[in-house]
Amino acid sequence: MFTKNSLDQLILSKRTVLCVGLDTDPMKIPPCITGTLQQRVLEFNQKIIHATAPRCVAFKINTAFYEAMGHEGWYILMKTALYIKEQYPSAFLIADAKRADIGNTSEKYARAFLEEMPFDAITASPYMGIDSIQPFFKEGKYIILLALTSNKGAMDFQLQPMADGRPLYQHVLQKFSDHYDEDKLMFVAGATHGEILKVIRSMVPEHYLLVPGVGAQGGDLSLTLQAGINSAGAGLLINSSREILYASNAENFWEAAAIVSEKYGI
Amino acid sequence: MFTKNSLDQLILSKRTVLCVGLDTDPMKIPPCITGTLQQRVLEFNQKIIHATAPRCVAFKINTAFYEAMGHEGWYILMKTALYIKEQYPSAFLIADAKRADIGNTSEKYARAFLEEMPFDAITASPYMGIDSIQPFFKEGKYIILLALTSNKGAMDFQLQPMADGRPLYQHVLQKFSDHYDEDKLMFVAGATHGEILKVIRSMVPEHYLLVPGVGAQGGDLSLTLQAGINSAGAGLLINSSREILYASNAENFWEAAAIVSEKYGI
Repeated sequence: MFTKNSLDQLILSKRTVLCVGLDTDPMKIPPCITGTLQQRVLEFNQKIIHATAPRCVAFKINTAFYEAMGHEGWYILMKTALYIKEQYPSAFLIADAKRADIGNTSEKYARAFLEEMPFDAITASPYMGIDSIQPFFKEGKYIILLALTSNKGAMDFQLQPMADGRPLYQHVLQKFSDHYDEDKLMFVAGATHGEILKVIRSMVPEHYLLVPGVGAQGGDLSLTLQAGINSAGAGLLINSSREILYASNAENFWEAAAIVSEKYGI
Repeated sequence: MFTKNSLDQLILSKRTVLCVGLDTDPMKIPPCITGTLQQRVLEFNQKIIHATAPRCVAFKINTAFYEAMGHEGWYILMKTALYIKEQYPSAFLIADAKRADIGNTSEKYARAFLEEMPFDAITASPYMGIDSIQPFFKEGKYIILLALTSNKGAMDFQLQPMADGRPLYQHVLQKFSDHYDEDKLMFVAGATHGEILKVIRSMVPEHYLLVPGVGAQGGDLSLTLQAGINSAGAGLLINSSREILYASNAENFWEAAAIVSEKYGI
């Protein structure tokens, strides 16, 4: 079970804000790993997890990559989540699922990720409003709500002004942070928006931010740290996926992954 | 492969707008069906599909209910989709997944539902903007975008006015319908909003509407038909899930399901 304070302490003791994104694509697994799809993905994930666990505080599994593997993918996703919880129980484990639905349906998603599987947190989309997210609030679990995403499409709605002149993402931040405190809720805030991270930090000074977009998507790491860190010197989880997973295609790929993960030390 | 015209013809020839939502909850399967989880859910789904296929034009599988069954659930979901496509190839088959992510990730979801599995359409959330949805546009497939959902949370953001005074859902309708025509795109529009369906129909006269919220959620069927029908006398898919699936707990539950499904005749 994690809280804002326990996450702060984890980050300060490990001296890193890194969240390793296990966006595993079977086509990109180094050729030294052989076997069935299941064997290859599990071995690759385990080697990456083992190499990066001392250098990160969180792992994030994006469900899309596993669903694309067919029904075996869901089994691999579950096995990977269990492996992390068994081997590295101090790591914060995120299901990057971006789900939300009407209440009785969101309840099923909550069961899938927060009960059937041992995730500590699930990412969720705010479009359907507070009652669509409510079932994800389970004792000791976190919701990580999309506020300002790292892609260009953030311009289409998230950054568009509402009637009071403030952009939609600020309404999302305000409505949800009014309802849920920093021990239950985090926000996704993309590193690709530069200065806006400071605005977000000022609006939600206590809530954790999960920050994608550094690395392959071009966000700046030092600016992100500067803008997003909280008063305790933590408050951020910076995600890196492709940059770490595919740092090398050689037999010692996990050593390359470990070296890249050092970049996120604080 | 479906188009707006072929869907119109399907509805007019079968004289129904019904989409049967296979939101199967193993706890609610009638006791006459026994066996393993997999056997029970597949047998229940097949009996419901067989009983309702002559009385509907579409089936919708909500992923949440299958994900809550653990990794077996994904297999059951796939088997159910294949069963429908094999036995009733004229039915329009929807993955109600409400996904969207950055481009390379949405590409994986597109592969999972529209290539690995034989769905004709996937539901998607607009919050991350147009580039997050773009990978779902595959030849001959439909995206069904959340516009105005049937839950109370639709008030939180979807119905809130933007700077020009028009609510967010209207911006979603406009931006996406400007980009994608009625042979590629549909919108989710909840029946619980009554008169607003007329506004939506006037804004997107040609696009299909997938309408949840009639039945267990309280939306009115005849008002929905009146407000949502297009100039061809079709243009609507009205979803019903719990009302049909759990119409009876008796051995002939599928007969009760067939009777309820008759309500959606036009």
